[in-house]
Amino acid sequence: MSESVTYDDVLAAAVRIAPYVHRTPVLTCESLSSEVGAELFFKCENLQKVGAFKARGAHNAVFGLSEELCRNGVATHSSGNHGAALALAARSRGIPAHVVVPESAPAVKRAAVERYGARIIECRPTLNDRERTLAEVVDRLGATPVHPYDDAAVIAGQGTAALELIDDIPDLDMVLVPVGGGGLLSGSAIVAKGSARSLAIVGAEPAAADDAWQGFRSGERVIVDAPVTIADGLRASLGKLNFELIRRHVDDIVRVDEAAIAAAMRVVWERMKIVIEPSAAVPVAALLEHEIDVEGQRIGVILSGGNVDLGSLPWSR
Amino acid sequence: MSESVTYDDVLAAAVRIAPYVHRTPVLTCESLSSEVGAELFFKCENLQKVGAFKARGAHNAVFGLSEELCRNGVATHSSGNHGAALALAARSRGIPAHVVVPESAPAVKRAAVERYGARIIECRPTLNDRERTLAEVVDRLGATPVHPYDDAAVIAGQGTAALELIDDIPDLDMVLVPVGGGGLLSGSAIVAKGSARSLAIVGAEPAAADDAWQGFRSGERVIVDAPVTIADGLRASLGKLNFELIRRHVDDIVRVDEAAIAAAMRVVWERMKIVIEPSAAVPVAALLEHEIDVEGQRIGVILSGGNVDLGSLPWSR
Repeated sequence: MSESVTYDDVLAAAVRIAPYVHRTPVLTCESLSSEVGAELFFKCENLQKVGAFKARGAHNAVFGLSEELCRNGVATHSSGNHGAALALAARSRGIPAHVVVPESAPAVKRAAVERYGARIIECRPTLNDRERTLAEVVDRLGATPVHPYDDAAVIAGQGTAALELIDDIPDLDMVLVPVGGGGLLSGSAIVAKGSARSLAIVGAEPAAADDAWQGFRSGERVIVDAPVTIADGLRASLGKLNFELIRRHVDDIVRVDEAAIAAAMRVVWERMKIVIEPSAAVPVAALLEHEIDVEGQRIGVILSGGNVDLGSLPWSR
Repeated sequence: MSESVTYDDVLAAAVRIAPYVHRTPVLTCESLSSEVGAELFFKCENLQKVGAFKARGAHNAVFGLSEELCRNGVATHSSGNHGAALALAARSRGIPAHVVVPESAPAVKRAAVERYGARIIECRPTLNDRERTLAEVVDRLGATPVHPYDDAAVIAGQGTAALELIDDIPDLDMVLVPVGGGGLLSGSAIVAKGSARSLAIVGAEPAAADDAWQGFRSGERVIVDAPVTIADGLRASLGKLNFELIRRHVDDIVRVDEAAIAAAMRVVWERMKIVIEPSAAVPVAALLEHEIDVEGQRIGVILSGGNVDLGSLPWSR
């Protein structure tokens, strides 16, 4: 596994994963655009296989492995979407998948991991516990670990969403992306800066889990352990490789509070008639709260996923 | 207003309304298709302007009126979606709209009518009250009434959704449509039988509001006054013109109970990541409950709308 990721790696990933993932649609919404004062283009990764962009990175990683590395299957830790994605990718290749899941993961995400045929191993919801449990699984079974974000092949795979977005809408001024572990943001940043276009790339993060915002400003990677945010896909702190790529290529990172995330999620459901998860609402919240100056610009937004426990919505608690 | 509606009327409507409405996407869902045992193609009118197919009929009616008939605006009674649609169509043409709304209409549908600039007049939620209040408004203001379904121009407009669906997916065996007042079903039936293809057309109705099912079987139009169903868009009974067209062109009507409607709605949200209203879930419920023999066939389903009060979902009550 290479310790850097290039634009060409993303182009190669796009070819490799094309038979296994959807080319998702880009939707617009007049009323949201007018409220924000910019032209918004929503890349709908909630309509992706397994309901999240994670299908891209997982397929690129699994189908990039040698036969030998595949033999005992793959393993990972994940709050849900990467676990489901790796399970699906492993099934596509005909190998087993072992997924370490924190007890706090939403039931709907757990169920998806199981539906795709992976074996689930439970752990406590801290980064240390997740990593230690995974190391045990890898050691015991000889499975190849596929990290949810701190992995070159995964990052290149996640970058393909932004690649499709700027292919469909060539004259964007900015792409706005949620940031948790940083797989999607670093992959998107490589595309934005590698595409020979003048395109800003900005991350949006829950203020309650703002390790990326802190690290981006201080220049030192920060770990926020077990943060409490409804954006369950963004509770992880930036990986090492992700942090390096983000420092190098990202233009800015902004933060939003929990109430703004829940409100943005509801507005997208009501106006656009699509289901997005709280993590996907984070960049929308940043726009609705005017955390970024986008007046009159053409803005791409990656709606990262749509896996929500419908029995427990933020406005019905 | 002609008392019959033809395939050519639908073709003309498609041209007339094209500048004002969306050509909505057709989505598929592998897991739903496999559960039903048929290939399903979902025509997403929840992604239509005003969040429902009603935008089609309202624009065809309003833009088909003479200057003279337009002068004092248009008026209608509607539990919501047709009201919002007529309000938008009137705004597009620059004329006033007056909408009679039953007190029981969901807040989100009321708000939409107001957002598009129409004037709201409240009434009790029975058919008699709705019609009497509308007659008063028409009399007093000289506005031209546009009936939500018992109107040739509205029916022709609603037919354009099925027209696009069979254009995108030419080799369907059946189109399945929710039925309330019968505008969408009669319009779709004209398309199915006029298109020179062998295409069955089936209506799906809440068992709690089964006037169309009763009338289709007995040959006599039936009125079910103020029925109680979560499918708030399907509480109306068939109009006269709708009943005649449905008797002539529709192959069957099936019924589903309230629990099946709520379950189907939730399944679509979870699997497809799109927001549909209970009325749109009715044909999906008919498929999931195996009320129709569709084994191995290619089935079009019109998802009629996506206007839901998110603060009051069937599974959080």
